[in-house]
Amino acid sequence: MNWTLARRAERMNPSVIREILKVTEKPGIISFAGGLPSPKTFPIDAFAKACADVLANDGHAALQYAASEGYGPLREFVAQELNRQSTAAGVPWPVDPAQVLITTGSQQALDLIAKVLIDTDSTVLVERPTYLGALQAFTPMEPQFVSVGSDAEGVDVDELKQHPSARFFYVLPNFQNPTGASMSEVRRSALSAEAARLGLPIVEDNPYGDLWFDTPPPAPLTARNRDGYIYMGSFSKTLAPGLRLGYLVAPKALYPKLLQAKQAADLHTPSFNQRMVAKVLEGGFLDGHVPVIRALYKSQCEAMLAALDKDFSGLGVSWNKPAGGMFLWLRLPGAMRAVDLLPKAVDKGVAFVPGSAFYAEEPQHNTLRLSFVTASVEQIAQGVSALAAAIREMKAG
Amino acid sequence: MNWTLARRAERMNPSVIREILKVTEKPGIISFAGGLPSPKTFPIDAFAKACADVLANDGHAALQYAASEGYGPLREFVAQELNRQSTAAGVPWPVDPAQVLITTGSQQALDLIAKVLIDTDSTVLVERPTYLGALQAFTPMEPQFVSVGSDAEGVDVDELKQHPSARFFYVLPNFQNPTGASMSEVRRSALSAEAARLGLPIVEDNPYGDLWFDTPPPAPLTARNRDGYIYMGSFSKTLAPGLRLGYLVAPKALYPKLLQAKQAADLHTPSFNQRMVAKVLEGGFLDGHVPVIRALYKSQCEAMLAALDKDFSGLGVSWNKPAGGMFLWLRLPGAMRAVDLLPKAVDKGVAFVPGSAFYAEEPQHNTLRLSFVTASVEQIAQGVSALAAAIREMKAG
Repeated sequence: MNWTLARRAERMNPSVIREILKVTEKPGIISFAGGLPSPKTFPIDAFAKACADVLANDGHAALQYAASEGYGPLREFVAQELNRQSTAAGVPWPVDPAQVLITTGSQQALDLIAKVLIDTDSTVLVERPTYLGALQAFTPMEPQFVSVGSDAEGVDVDELKQHPSARFFYVLPNFQNPTGASMSEVRRSALSAEAARLGLPIVEDNPYGDLWFDTPPPAPLTARNRDGYIYMGSFSKTLAPGLRLGYLVAPKALYPKLLQAKQAADLHTPSFNQRMVAKVLEGGFLDGHVPVIRALYKSQCEAMLAALDKDFSGLGVSWNKPAGGMFLWLRLPGAMRAVDLLPKAVDKGVAFVPGSAFYAEEPQHNTLRLSFVTASVEQIAQGVSALAAAIREMKAG
Repeated sequence: MNWTLARRAERMNPSVIREILKVTEKPGIISFAGGLPSPKTFPIDAFAKACADVLANDGHAALQYAASEGYGPLREFVAQELNRQSTAAGVPWPVDPAQVLITTGSQQALDLIAKVLIDTDSTVLVERPTYLGALQAFTPMEPQFVSVGSDAEGVDVDELKQHPSARFFYVLPNFQNPTGASMSEVRRSALSAEAARLGLPIVEDNPYGDLWFDTPPPAPLTARNRDGYIYMGSFSKTLAPGLRLGYLVAPKALYPKLLQAKQAADLHTPSFNQRMVAKVLEGGFLDGHVPVIRALYKSQCEAMLAALDKDFSGLGVSWNKPAGGMFLWLRLPGAMRAVDLLPKAVDKGVAFVPGSAFYAEEPQHNTLRLSFVTASVEQIAQGVSALAAAIREMKAG
């Protein structure tokens, strides 16, 4: 048969991370590679109760076709929760549930945004480095990526001026994937002001914002410019990823097109999953549940930082100290390439993701991402020690 | 903000059907409009048991991120079932589970196929009329649609010759949406031979094939040319649509690109739903369950046909007698437009979908689609009588 691939298909590539994850599935490998939430945190009993409840009392509706917008009570929860958090952070954000679109994981929100906003050769601004899944979702629509640098406070706002006609700037202000870095309040204000001045739309992705260790992050960018931004969130990190429940909040001018793209993409997100999660969320469930996740991830992050301090001294490696989230970012000595280090590390029983996977252009080959949430505290100590041994071996030549 | 929509977004439109469904949600309206399976057929008890079982025994995996390809046992079920059915129909089809990609409803399969195979202005062949959701999924990738006519046996194979460079021909051979028509064995052979001669790929969509009344349909087209076709199926009609579980079977040359598109679209279909349904399917569940759906839909189809015979005589309306599926196709007297009839019908308490929604080009305005699966036998008699009254009123002017 004469199969002819679309031009965009040639740009699609297998995910580097998925390929690495296959390696890490070998028994005995300690994985700092995947961004897999700790299964210990999945509220299995609450899910079991909610499944039984929804099927017994609302089974016909939960199993039927449903509105593309999503399940009403879940959209209301999202709107209320965002308003509550933003108000607590000092910037009230009266989200209308009609602006909330439930998506099949927040990955789907990226796909819908790409379809509605990216033409071939449109400029799309991303952080340097940025979330690999966003690059994968945007790439089929054939944008020109331009990456924006950052310092310890957050993205370099001045760089935006050079790209006034970009379709949007995709940014993760909280505990970013891959770096774990967060944007300061001062930088958020500056970014928000500059984006408004330029008329530059922002797509704000916030899957990790709830996973703070000691202090909640500043208010979302979107709360500061409600008609200018699309906001994305997820239940993957606070409940469980295997249900594929995310959402976006869009300005009323854009919502109808995103909804039409959603309808064409999969009609609607599973109605059963939406009702089941809405049931779990009743009565403030997350208020008790999320602090448990925070405490666990904080202890695991501290274990990793302690192990790095202990085993990495004198290796010429630097890293950050995340205030939340799931990831930590390492810089190897200048000329050392993380892709070359990986097979040696796997030989010693530990895996990570080379940082080059997260760059839209000009990768920094001496970077790598470590996840501290999947492995236990004991495994973290052992894995960091193995990683140090692999680096020493590389240095020795 | 300077939101600039992608060119493809201008082609997206709200679904006519979704708009009509909103009207039909008014209390007291008998709806022949939506393609909603009868909720009476949803195996709620089996789902409840499977949810409890999966969460108790396999909760961590069911709630975690998972492979984009889908859950192994579910892919194996699909492969075995297709082989079994095709063999029974006389054309053995040894499907390799590695060719099966689980999708978030079969609607998502359409989206992935569009991304991988359609460039701007690619010719895509569709039936006249065809499934509206396919037109919606393909349209964002900006194809040129060409529609292929049909007679009582199926699509007009000769018309394919005029479009040898089409990217593919999208066809629903069994109890088609919207017409309810099926393709004969002779026509399937002829289509298969001609597609092979032309090198024309076929995308075969089969959501309704299991819903036969008296005789199973002939073997799938794909079984006759395994490397030339993509096959699509769904659990929406045999179990429940609210779980959003569909699949495609692709030739090995195409599978990797479809998989990459899937990964970018939503990472994977909910692992929980896949495991839950795999659990329900164990022990030949469908062998007992699907015959119950068939018997119900057959009785409802017969009720609709009997009501049409009784109430529509002398109205100049013609219709087909489906051998399965969910839909029946009406032709009004030549100049009567179904879109004009609809508000009058709704006034009398009955709704349908005007046939014009299902044409890629040159709609036949005197056609309409009736679903016989959502309304009860009593409602069907009442609704058909109301529809006849609306038509009489239109004729009277």
